Amino acid sequence: MECAATGLAAPWGPEMRPRGERRIIALADGGFDLLEAKTAVGVIRYAIDPVVAVVDHLHAGKRASDVVGVGDHIPVVATVGDALASHPDANTLLLGTAPRGGILPASWRAQIVQAMRAGLDVINGLHAFLSDDAELAPVAAECGVTIWDARRAPDAHRVADTRAHALAATVVLTVGSDCNVGKMSTALEVDALLRKRERTSVFVPTGQTGIMIAGWGTSIDEVISDFTAGAAEDLVMEAAKTATTKEDIILVEGQGSLVHPGYSGVTLSLIHGSAPDALILCHQSTRTQIRRYTLPIPSLADLVVLHGAMTAHVKPAPVIAISLNTYGMSEADAHAAVARATAETGLPATDPVRYGPAILADAVEAFAKARAATM
Amino acid sequence: MECAATGLAAPWGPEMRPRGERRIIALADGGFDLLEAKTAVGVIRYAIDPVVAVVDHLHAGKRASDVVGVGDHIPVVATVGDALASHPDANTLLLGTAPRGGILPASWRAQIVQAMRAGLDVINGLHAFLSDDAELAPVAAECGVTIWDARRAPDAHRVADTRAHALAATVVLTVGSDCNVGKMSTALEVDALLRKRERTSVFVPTGQTGIMIAGWGTSIDEVISDFTAGAAEDLVMEAAKTATTKEDIILVEGQGSLVHPGYSGVTLSLIHGSAPDALILCHQSTRTQIRRYTLPIPSLADLVVLHGAMTAHVKPAPVIAISLNTYGMSEADAHAAVARATAETGLPATDPVRYGPAILADAVEAFAKARAATM
Repeated sequence: MECAATGLAAPWGPEMRPRGERRIIALADGGFDLLEAKTAVGVIRYAIDPVVAVVDHLHAGKRASDVVGVGDHIPVVATVGDALASHPDANTLLLGTAPRGGILPASWRAQIVQAMRAGLDVINGLHAFLSDDAELAPVAAECGVTIWDARRAPDAHRVADTRAHALAATVVLTVGSDCNVGKMSTALEVDALLRKRERTSVFVPTGQTGIMIAGWGTSIDEVISDFTAGAAEDLVMEAAKTATTKEDIILVEGQGSLVHPGYSGVTLSLIHGSAPDALILCHQSTRTQIRRYTLPIPSLADLVVLHGAMTAHVKPAPVIAISLNTYGMSEADAHAAVARATAETGLPATDPVRYGPAILADAVEAFAKARAATM
Repeated sequence: MECAATGLAAPWGPEMRPRGERRIIALADGGFDLLEAKTAVGVIRYAIDPVVAVVDHLHAGKRASDVVGVGDHIPVVATVGDALASHPDANTLLLGTAPRGGILPASWRAQIVQAMRAGLDVINGLHAFLSDDAELAPVAAECGVTIWDARRAPDAHRVADTRAHALAATVVLTVGSDCNVGKMSTALEVDALLRKRERTSVFVPTGQTGIMIAGWGTSIDEVISDFTAGAAEDLVMEAAKTATTKEDIILVEGQGSLVHPGYSGVTLSLIHGSAPDALILCHQSTRTQIRRYTLPIPSLADLVVLHGAMTAHVKPAPVIAISLNTYGMSEADAHAAVARATAETGLPATDPVRYGPAILADAVEAFAKARAATM
């Protein structure tokens, strides 16, 4: 499988309808919202293949944009059967939510079987692998369709060895105050603008949604913890085959947060394995507590200091910009949040989805230029 | 399987000769030294079952203590065959090294087969699971012996949820400046002394050697990274069934280091999952660089600050004492290293193996008493 954007071939991947030829039904039954359905929303926003319908009986009859702010022309329907009836050209079913623990909702099984019997490939981002499933895998074989478990990590048992510490290209990692605040979107938005500016820039996917969008990558949270940093290192080394000069940029999709009680280890493995030269700190402005926990989120200034401390002793990487997610805020409140972030940290800040990523891309280019001047 | 020290039953474990009835041959061929063979050395020092012989042809003819400083009466022999000949009462083969990446050395296969054919159970701490091995597993079945892959983690997919944040018992975690500096030994030494002082204290094993010694636990570096903190949390909750009051102590075996490029994510998962109230910082005094890397180890004072920063936002846990490994140093140098550690950090310090763990146990008891007074 090849990533059209970068020419990077993934070392693993399914034989299925290729990117560019998929017409996707996104199954998000019972969970089509911005918190649970970040996979569906990410694919709607950034994938090159169209999502032709979303399945969630709770929102049937609406447009996707009514629920999640994107997808003006995408109907939400009650069942996979309804989606197949209204979109007989659909050829791919995407499981579009990320339930905690990654278990397959039992109620989805019949709908997945129905889709496979209609000839659809299945793209799955859950921890639960459908291609190992005693009920679903045989149906896929019988129907001649492919199940792609995007989270299935390569069976690499490699401890990180600082190979990514001294690349020519500038490596930028998005980090965050919590899960699901915009780390992938920020990396994708900045990457796209840099390429529009005719930079060589490579987006490095580290989670299932980024992998579905870019067509390669590793879901690093699925890797055995001793080898998680090694997996992140491998991804950056793969990107460095394309981003070869000191003018080039590698934008690594962040995961979790250093202050997340459940996922902080994934985050630190990614920081030390991908060995960034600089960080973009992402935050959702309306959020004050770690989602699903009662822990307060530290101030942006404290988070800048914390990331500086955690990178200082392995490979120093300053936070060079703040990316805010101001979804749901008024224009005045969003504007004020951006101004506050800059006042608090002294760093350039913006919401790359609301205002465009130019300020963040400018910060990356300025940093890369200064870095290149010292090489 | 039950841990004699605590009465804790492990929720998983093999059917093999129980603790207390094993007579162990430790296979460490080509790697019987303090760096590679920490599993063998830990079992020699702390397990209740005797190691009757060590196999390493490089040191054949010596005593274990000649090579690693412990095991005065344990001969080192060239082959498993020699060990079986001189110790026909041996009933357990323990794979005693931890090669990087955890692969089984090819040259060991014939010796493992020979041991199984002689009726020995096999205890394995490698990432590579022998009970999945196409050659070795059938031999074990044929011979009616058991392979215990101590690193095999339970198939729990649970994200940490801060359940261990508010226990009555005081939770103390050993952290370190690097791998293999004494985190397990420190926890075991302090735990043993606290129990001798008639405290209720529970040692929580988080790695293969600790598991082999205590007979329960989870090798958390073998857990999928999204669930590593959850696995650490589960272990502490298990210990909290025994350590139930505010007078009780839970001593968690640390892993890796926050400044280790390969394993830092394991460390942070353990910190945030086990949710300690206090930390003991472990360091090998002669070491200046992360082992196998060219990265300098930060000063003890910097490490105290870093651990404070990384715990502050999730559950604050001060470093309350310094545990030094002064192996190989002269008495004068060791004494000076301890004095320097206290001068640098203002904290009590000692080498618990050389001088005994009283200073560390005192620090834990004083901390627990002060904490209990506020509850």
